[in-house]
Amino acid sequence: MNKTKMQLLSSLVIPWLLLGCQQVTNTTDTSKSENSTEQAADANLRATGDLGLVIERATGQVQIVNHSSQQSLAQIDGLGDLSHASIVYSRDQRFGFVFGRDGGLTKVDLLTGKIDKRIIQSGNSIGGAISQDGKFVAVSNYTPGGVKIFATDTLELVANIPATELPNHPRNKDGSIKRSKVVGLVDAPGQKFVFSLFDSNEIWIADLSQSDLSTDKVKITKYTDIGLNPYDALISPDGRFYIAGLFGEDGMALLDLWSLDKGVKRILGDYGKGEKKLPVYKMPHLEGWAIAGNYAYVPAVGLHQVLIIDTNTWQQVGAIDVHGQPVFVMAQPDNRQIWVNFAYPLNDTIQVIDSKNQQLIKTLTPGPGVLHMEFTPRGEHVWMSVRDSDEIQIYNSQNFELLNTIPAESPSGIFFTNRAHQIGL
Amino acid sequence: MNKTKMQLLSSLVIPWLLLGCQQVTNTTDTSKSENSTEQAADANLRATGDLGLVIERATGQVQIVNHSSQQSLAQIDGLGDLSHASIVYSRDQRFGFVFGRDGGLTKVDLLTGKIDKRIIQSGNSIGGAISQDGKFVAVSNYTPGGVKIFATDTLELVANIPATELPNHPRNKDGSIKRSKVVGLVDAPGQKFVFSLFDSNEIWIADLSQSDLSTDKVKITKYTDIGLNPYDALISPDGRFYIAGLFGEDGMALLDLWSLDKGVKRILGDYGKGEKKLPVYKMPHLEGWAIAGNYAYVPAVGLHQVLIIDTNTWQQVGAIDVHGQPVFVMAQPDNRQIWVNFAYPLNDTIQVIDSKNQQLIKTLTPGPGVLHMEFTPRGEHVWMSVRDSDEIQIYNSQNFELLNTIPAESPSGIFFTNRAHQIGL
Repeated sequence: MNKTKMQLLSSLVIPWLLLGCQQVTNTTDTSKSENSTEQAADANLRATGDLGLVIERATGQVQIVNHSSQQSLAQIDGLGDLSHASIVYSRDQRFGFVFGRDGGLTKVDLLTGKIDKRIIQSGNSIGGAISQDGKFVAVSNYTPGGVKIFATDTLELVANIPATELPNHPRNKDGSIKRSKVVGLVDAPGQKFVFSLFDSNEIWIADLSQSDLSTDKVKITKYTDIGLNPYDALISPDGRFYIAGLFGEDGMALLDLWSLDKGVKRILGDYGKGEKKLPVYKMPHLEGWAIAGNYAYVPAVGLHQVLIIDTNTWQQVGAIDVHGQPVFVMAQPDNRQIWVNFAYPLNDTIQVIDSKNQQLIKTLTPGPGVLHMEFTPRGEHVWMSVRDSDEIQIYNSQNFELLNTIPAESPSGIFFTNRAHQIGL
Repeated sequence: MNKTKMQLLSSLVIPWLLLGCQQVTNTTDTSKSENSTEQAADANLRATGDLGLVIERATGQVQIVNHSSQQSLAQIDGLGDLSHASIVYSRDQRFGFVFGRDGGLTKVDLLTGKIDKRIIQSGNSIGGAISQDGKFVAVSNYTPGGVKIFATDTLELVANIPATELPNHPRNKDGSIKRSKVVGLVDAPGQKFVFSLFDSNEIWIADLSQSDLSTDKVKITKYTDIGLNPYDALISPDGRFYIAGLFGEDGMALLDLWSLDKGVKRILGDYGKGEKKLPVYKMPHLEGWAIAGNYAYVPAVGLHQVLIIDTNTWQQVGAIDVHGQPVFVMAQPDNRQIWVNFAYPLNDTIQVIDSKNQQLIKTLTPGPGVLHMEFTPRGEHVWMSVRDSDEIQIYNSQNFELLNTIPAESPSGIFFTNRAHQIGL
């Protein structure tokens, strides 16, 4: 492609247009102005590989951040109730899909810094996922219970999957029969969504590659009696193992997506027993499971421990004593270190475990309300939301040095755009 | 100029310029014109998460491609000798760094579609890597033997690491003492580069986190007598194991970067023995090793086999018979399938292995000269360079359907921007 055409291509932003039109009236030094317009246009181009969104829960806002410059680029408001909000990204990393607690689904444009589209798709929702090919975004709903699937380009509804009816439960306000709440929704390879039904004790797989979406017909595989009240779930980084935590009994439910005919197995029979020993301040997040090598590092329920699970046998093989009740237990991208935050009232502290010798090696005290952590894609830095000091703290993950802080109003989740390319995120 | 580019230019640029300038003369409805200016400008913004570069070796060109739209966006020429060329990406995914065989290091801007900078940094080079934090790009050189490290923003030299001198070898043309060729250069966590010295049988680690780059002083750890003539190397996806293939003897050299004090171990003592059984048409690429779960799938040398290695013991535990001498053996991002291409004269074929049961499940015949494969980030598609039919073929990795082709002149390597976020790529 020759230079002239490339200049045209390179000049497609607003400053160029303003300057470009000035050129029409000023013909004295065309070459110079062309040059500087090009530079100005280039200076305004923004790539999307090192961006992220930070949820400011209390104010219904998100901040666009850049993790190379460690700066905030923009703040966007009007996203509704962002408690427990999470975000997935389009495959080009331009758009973030923010799942709000109020049933809001907001598509945020990281290039323009604006809301591209926002819909209220249910009365009460909890998380979502984006399909392997990036064409569909799915939301798991409490009210009405079920999953709705939207086209990522338009946010138009393409499929509605009502959950199992609960005839013995009290009816909805409008007189309709209640349906099970849906939780633990993740994407899986082969253009699938996997999710759990809290009230009807099921795990379902929606296979979009085998569905006729033009008729809203989704192929569903259902596993029943998987255990009492699955409340959250995770999928292993390779997309093979789907594991649901059980609120109604001890243990967990495991589905091997490479062996669907084998059904759901019960694992870790003692998991949750700790619940009776200490008051549980917060059920740990299952998405936070760190799977590193042959081990999963798992937050104990109601105990000051991180459990070590052998992922070949799914048996507990050890436990590491930690500062408090763990909430998120997260592996660094290179799996070398495991980072842990804690439930209230011990949520001012972060601890780091060396996965080689499974020893605690560092305790940090960022301050009250450390709610979430996010690693830069190759793991050199870790960002932390410190709610009560209204800031994000950025640490060097190798020497634990505090590198920078960014002001943010009651920050909670931090989500970087490289999640676009990871299975289950 | 192909149809795509014409469409891009005619649909986006020209009407836009006319509109933009008309608005300046029409001040009756400023808000509206600002709005539409903004909208049109927005329409031209480009994110960088779903882009890639394809090397057109014969003509010294690269194509910018988009793997969502499956289209070519631009062609850039003037990149010199691109045989054996490889590419790494800046952490924002805006820039590709192209390592040419002629010592050329070219920084390509994927947003403007132009060469941002190009230098000739040695007489003969073979590959490179980008540091964990994205600030440095390193090139491994044959002539003069060594590694040069450049700032990614300016391509200014920040450190020069000459390789070991070879006093007993014939001198260089200019009378200087020859130095060992450097191969198998990769990035590793902790801001490190690891590489092998072909002629002096060494593995070196350059630790930039411990270096004083202002004085060009790089902290180097050297391992000597690692085996005869390391010719290429790989690093495991978590950045822990660095493995060099040996040209001068059988077996391989393994360095566990989590246990540097243990030194380099020899593994797979029989590896390479096949060399004597059949003429070796092409030494297999080590970067192509698929590490899936507890197994590595490894191209045999000179045999029609893929070897199965247990990564806990680094012993061979099996072999799978395949169509020809494997070149690249690549795991799909979900590790479920292993894709293999072959050396001349059987290089018209691709075979797929199911990693669950380790059986061959599919044979495809894209045509002569299938040189490289690249998966979309979550693995739903695989792109193949088919050199002799001058095209890229795009397949659905689940049902093996051919989805699309893109014209390309003698395409070789395909590199998508999500590599920016993966250790060792």
